[in-house]
Amino acid sequence: MTYCLGIVTKSGLVMASDSRTNAGYDQVNVCRKMYTFVTPGEHVFVLLASGNLSLTQSVVTLLRRDFEAGYGIAKAPSLYDAARLVGEQVRRVDAVDRPALERDDFKFNVNILLGGQVAGQKPGLFLIYPQGNFVQATEESPYLQIGETKYGRPILDRGINFERTSLEEAAKYALLSMDSTMKSNVTVGPPIDLLVYLTDELNLTRMRRFPADDPDLAKIRVRWEQALRQAVMKLPQVRFKQKSGTAPQTTGESIELVETPSSQTSDLQSQQQPGSAGQVGGGGAATRDG
Amino acid sequence: MTYCLGIVTKSGLVMASDSRTNAGYDQVNVCRKMYTFVTPGEHVFVLLASGNLSLTQSVVTLLRRDFEAGYGIAKAPSLYDAARLVGEQVRRVDAVDRPALERDDFKFNVNILLGGQVAGQKPGLFLIYPQGNFVQATEESPYLQIGETKYGRPILDRGINFERTSLEEAAKYALLSMDSTMKSNVTVGPPIDLLVYLTDELNLTRMRRFPADDPDLAKIRVRWEQALRQAVMKLPQVRFKQKSGTAPQTTGESIELVETPSSQTSDLQSQQQPGSAGQVGGGGAATRDG
Repeated sequence: MTYCLGIVTKSGLVMASDSRTNAGYDQVNVCRKMYTFVTPGEHVFVLLASGNLSLTQSVVTLLRRDFEAGYGIAKAPSLYDAARLVGEQVRRVDAVDRPALERDDFKFNVNILLGGQVAGQKPGLFLIYPQGNFVQATEESPYLQIGETKYGRPILDRGINFERTSLEEAAKYALLSMDSTMKSNVTVGPPIDLLVYLTDELNLTRMRRFPADDPDLAKIRVRWEQALRQAVMKLPQVRFKQKSGTAPQTTGESIELVETPSSQTSDLQSQQQPGSAGQVGGGGAATRDG
Repeated sequence: MTYCLGIVTKSGLVMASDSRTNAGYDQVNVCRKMYTFVTPGEHVFVLLASGNLSLTQSVVTLLRRDFEAGYGIAKAPSLYDAARLVGEQVRRVDAVDRPALERDDFKFNVNILLGGQVAGQKPGLFLIYPQGNFVQATEESPYLQIGETKYGRPILDRGINFERTSLEEAAKYALLSMDSTMKSNVTVGPPIDLLVYLTDELNLTRMRRFPADDPDLAKIRVRWEQALRQAVMKLPQVRFKQKSGTAPQTTGESIELVETPSSQTSDLQSQQQPGSAGQVGGGGAATRDG
């Protein structure tokens, strides 16, 4: 599996990709999924690819061959046209490889994120589908993801804003989104490639690869876990409160959310423990005086 | 779609479910997905169901009919046996309905969470698959999910611990997991049913339904968004720092994570803005003196 994401804000672009590929469960490899095409001062294109590695590599090889010969996306008058050219190469590989794949029940699976800028135009971010068509990120939906997208989405939904999020913040959200995905799904893994592009720079100057043992990556994971737990503790506390006037048989309690001044920990629960601790697995119907 | 989760800790069980069902995109309904079977002092069974509503309702109807006649899970000597009986009913509905469904390319899709306790034994939590077999939550994996599970998983992975998490905290994590899922996927929606069961209680006394306009639900969402953004800000800041000794043409910068004392906001970015603001969409290769 794979997880790649791109974020576009007023200030520029952030793109991030993991590096884990697998063929079956027992053949797991490291492979960079970020490909860059730059002519300084003219255009910057960054591709992130997910799907069948043989297909994504073919698409990138064809794009690279054209680019280095000075045509293809090297001549694209806009990022839209570049996305169109990427889609064309996807369809070209489709025509060559799909029949053989489908004969053996493999899906034709290529998804590509294309971020970048052409001189004189705005930076942009596109998602090219296996069919070669594509969508573009907008100010209302300023990020796009491919691969294993769901684990890392809630943090982006809460935090990314086209107007207000700085590139440094966006880079941090990208790392957190990537870390959440790696934590919940082992088929997404390091090294993490992170790239930050400032609008109108028309060159790539800020890239970092975080290997598995990167101390910064470890630090942000540990600190994020601590910060999340503290954030949860600061929320209104869940309390159980005796309902008045219920029938005698049903000793009902309401579930309430109440503000607590310090909210260090759930003190009601720690009060319960002396009564109920050690009873896990014990018999009988314990009553509860909460 | 559906999202249901169960959490088992040393202190008891927390179970939560959404209420949105849909047949196609334009027929969206509200339906409770939490079903309870209780004989006070003897046993408590809570079922959460996802999948094809016609199938889950059939399974629950068959279980209910037996239960009310005093057999089926009403006679189950353990939670394991109850899970086995639920699986049997799934297979019974499978035998009746699967051929007609598959003829029209519908999948036989039923997933059930079964949480509860039988007197004299530990509480437990099972996930029954469409094939009728099942897995059990363990101390290492103390929660189980069905339906749209991925968005709400990272927060559980960070926060839930069988030994240390109190029931109040677990209830809060369940609400946050549910809220993250609702935020990122419109096919999961309120009302939210939340149930908290204390070990050895052998009755259900703490249940709450949060409708869409519930003020507590709204409060926890708003407060959680604020808390998350603050947590992100307190993390080490991402900074771009001029690399020394690079070739003159490539003005490279490293991406670093640095501690900042106040971390109110990303001040490097705000320093950049006077130079680059308003250039979005402007032409030419802007240089950057960060």
